[in-house]
Amino acid sequence: MEVKIKKAETIKPVIETDKLGFGQHFTDHMFNMDYNHQKGWHNPRIEPYAPIIADPAMMVFHYAQAVFEGLKAFYSKSGDILLFRPKDNFKRLNDSCRAICIPQVDEEFALKALKQLIEIEKDKVPQADGTALYIRPTIVATDAYLGVKPSDTYRYFVILSPVGAYYAAGFNPIKIWITKNHVRAIKGGIGCYKAAANYAASLYAGKEAAAKGYAQVLWLDGEKRKYIEEVGAMNIFFVIDNQLITPELSGSILPGITRKSVIRLAKEWDIKVSERQISVEELIEAYDAGKLQEAFGSGTAAVISPVGEIGYDDKVLNINNGKVGEMTAKFYKRLTDIQYGRAEGPDGWVEKI
Amino acid sequence: MEVKIKKAETIKPVIETDKLGFGQHFTDHMFNMDYNHQKGWHNPRIEPYAPIIADPAMMVFHYAQAVFEGLKAFYSKSGDILLFRPKDNFKRLNDSCRAICIPQVDEEFALKALKQLIEIEKDKVPQADGTALYIRPTIVATDAYLGVKPSDTYRYFVILSPVGAYYAAGFNPIKIWITKNHVRAIKGGIGCYKAAANYAASLYAGKEAAAKGYAQVLWLDGEKRKYIEEVGAMNIFFVIDNQLITPELSGSILPGITRKSVIRLAKEWDIKVSERQISVEELIEAYDAGKLQEAFGSGTAAVISPVGEIGYDDKVLNINNGKVGEMTAKFYKRLTDIQYGRAEGPDGWVEKI
Repeated sequence: MEVKIKKAETIKPVIETDKLGFGQHFTDHMFNMDYNHQKGWHNPRIEPYAPIIADPAMMVFHYAQAVFEGLKAFYSKSGDILLFRPKDNFKRLNDSCRAICIPQVDEEFALKALKQLIEIEKDKVPQADGTALYIRPTIVATDAYLGVKPSDTYRYFVILSPVGAYYAAGFNPIKIWITKNHVRAIKGGIGCYKAAANYAASLYAGKEAAAKGYAQVLWLDGEKRKYIEEVGAMNIFFVIDNQLITPELSGSILPGITRKSVIRLAKEWDIKVSERQISVEELIEAYDAGKLQEAFGSGTAAVISPVGEIGYDDKVLNINNGKVGEMTAKFYKRLTDIQYGRAEGPDGWVEKI
Repeated sequence: MEVKIKKAETIKPVIETDKLGFGQHFTDHMFNMDYNHQKGWHNPRIEPYAPIIADPAMMVFHYAQAVFEGLKAFYSKSGDILLFRPKDNFKRLNDSCRAICIPQVDEEFALKALKQLIEIEKDKVPQADGTALYIRPTIVATDAYLGVKPSDTYRYFVILSPVGAYYAAGFNPIKIWITKNHVRAIKGGIGCYKAAANYAASLYAGKEAAAKGYAQVLWLDGEKRKYIEEVGAMNIFFVIDNQLITPELSGSILPGITRKSVIRLAKEWDIKVSERQISVEELIEAYDAGKLQEAFGSGTAAVISPVGEIGYDDKVLNINNGKVGEMTAKFYKRLTDIQYGRAEGPDGWVEKI
């Protein structure tokens, strides 16, 4: 398929670095492609960023049949624009599609089209330290129909948002809160896919956590409410007794690409890493025994997010005196060095545009 | 608040009764109202049915922050248009709002505005036997922002769809299939609210069921995958040993208004009715002992849906020889008699427009 290109007539001014924020400014163009049963995915086009003319009966509004991905393009010192493991994102997009009955896209074509889009927007990739171009491929169900069934038509679109350094105030640990009352996902459900529906279920506990002064929720498993799962926006890692531990991919946890990258780097560095069930009790025991050394989250937005405090009931786990741990810092540095082209990563991790 | 009214300039032709279907044709007008933190819900208006101009970053596309309701208006023999327990729908809408951090609406105002809308569309309420005007109040998050948090802005809208008799081919039993591999909802999640997100999670199993020749999925609980929950589009009832049994509202089941109405009628008729956990094992034992006499679903779309077959693994439960049961038929007749104004129901069940 040939991507049709229609350039925007007016170009928005470049946003100043300190006003970028996250996911609130968008570039001048977007990629669009439509699906119906007769034509499959068709009419791929790069065109000015524009609203979707959405029938009020559009199925995504009523039944949340939507999936998305999140990845970033980085501006390197040498002037190249780099993508981090983008093939994995498009593979996961198709996994998500399968899970909620959305027709899959051609992964190679989708990546090629993304590169074309970024090429057009290359002046909008921010260059300051820690900034990036956040990329949001999304698919939504577009039938104007209220019966509960997979839609017959879809829109695939990609929008781009220049984003600021996630840690504008420095690389500081966050506080996360374990909820016992709310459950994000369950085995047999869709928690291991990047489906829009998972996020709606996370908002209430997020609000409760915020009211208690915590930045994020750490979710437990839905069956026993005992085992640690993930943070919703990130996977979670613990350093206990010099070992790196992260919950195994049990079917209700998102298989994070940053998570996978951390595990790979840990193995290269001969850090003992274990993907397994870990209960809150075990975490608290390790803490009480002085063996919980570090905790951090991994995800596209923040890459690595040091955790300085975990709240659970009346218990507060104060991790590494609220300071960034050594291993946490090491993963952050290594990953961002690779992403920004300051260091060579494993084969295939970085793709030039 | 005053509802502003702008009439449509062109009126679509009335759809022939046998072409109505469900949720595919919409009337000429819709109700709209917007929310922001400064003004709260504001600018209520009835205007021509029109697309929503949706920014591609609109939060509902990405995080499924959306809730809805479903109710019907019925054309009575005397020429009145009747709503069935609409206050309960708006109360439940607000319960759903709370659960996913959407600002609540004024229930009385919302009902008043709905009546105004239907008054304008009264010629579009179909009059043939078994037809109705399906009503879909919906709220979607409208911020153009990719951070995961509750939106600051929302659109509330109501669209109307003239719908045909659900049982166009007669009031015939359907086949439903119990899935062991997929889970719709979990205690601590949002399965007991009418959130768009719940439906995305149900599509895959629905497709599997369809491939096996079943019309709907009967879901089990997410913890033990043992106890019967609901059908996704309906609550479920069994008649075992002359008793009416339905799963209790455990936190992962939608509290159906038709469900509640069936229970109330059963009590009036001195039918022993029990809201409690019921396992698949118990159901199969009752079946094997010849005590499973009837099964039916309850919901707004079909009112009462007789179930003639339940599939589970390799086991097939053939209920009442695939014929509509006596109690099933009795509930259907009584409920539809009340809804269409052919009989008087309990106080407050029916509201004239």
